[in-house]
Amino acid sequence: MNKFMRAAIAEAEAGVKKGHGGPFGAVIVRKGKIIARGHNEVVLHNDPTNHAEIVAIRKAAAKLKRFDLSDCVIYTTCEPCPMCLGAIHWAKMRKMYIGATRKDAAKIGFDDQFIYDVILGKAKKKQVKIFKTDRTGCLKVFKLFYEKKDRVMY
Amino acid sequence: MNKFMRAAIAEAEAGVKKGHGGPFGAVIVRKGKIIARGHNEVVLHNDPTNHAEIVAIRKAAAKLKRFDLSDCVIYTTCEPCPMCLGAIHWAKMRKMYIGATRKDAAKIGFDDQFIYDVILGKAKKKQVKIFKTDRTGCLKVFKLFYEKKDRVMY
Repeated sequence: MNKFMRAAIAEAEAGVKKGHGGPFGAVIVRKGKIIARGHNEVVLHNDPTNHAEIVAIRKAAAKLKRFDLSDCVIYTTCEPCPMCLGAIHWAKMRKMYIGATRKDAAKIGFDDQFIYDVILGKAKKKQVKIFKTDRTGCLKVFKLFYEKKDRVMY
Repeated sequence: MNKFMRAAIAEAEAGVKKGHGGPFGAVIVRKGKIIARGHNEVVLHNDPTNHAEIVAIRKAAAKLKRFDLSDCVIYTTCEPCPMCLGAIHWAKMRKMYIGATRKDAAKIGFDDQFIYDVILGKAKKKQVKIFKTDRTGCLKVFKLFYEKKDRVMY
């Protein structure tokens, strides 16, 4: 077994035994060493965003004191949901190792596929109704940012 | 102007002026009252996951002491990226008000569309290479969870 995936699995297992949330773990590796570990803590912290990958990314970024993790690799025990896949992209990572698939996750009741289907336009029923309002006011803040000389992009 | 979107815009503006991150704000409303406010803090906290919606969702969930925000509505100054759209779904929210669009965001350099394209299978170049490993080991933890009598689903 891949040693980094073994560490991610150990995280997932510890999380399940402690009742912290779903059976998912992740580690982030830089220069051949694990710099952050995370497991799902949705239940522990009452935080719907506390998926293993998000937890690990936040820890790694805090450790490196930068939001750019392009020199890091993530190992996750399950194919990421759209939230985590988005986070991995925002963290600018280039490589990801996955264990189980989103279909495997759906079989034990974690329906990431539903959210993918919303994005893909395939969802039979949409959970979230979307309304539009006040675009002009929002664009004013975009302009304020865009004209700022010291703006930092990420 | 919608009063809740006005509050989200005020958050976004404050974030830009303080240099905390991108020009995005969000508020979460329950029973006609704002229970959480957030703006982008990616730069402030060196956290690539600290988008306005994620910040607001985490605050609202902490305040209500539950990961289920199905009785809440989110107002966000910009159409959410896949990460935030995923978070809104995991938080089980049913209504979302948006101001600017993802195309507006792309124009000032925030390319959510790129991540949408990856999910939609339209991306010309993929940022993240995906490798598969040790699915069997990962599935063992799924089984451990699934057989747990006191497991909590979210």
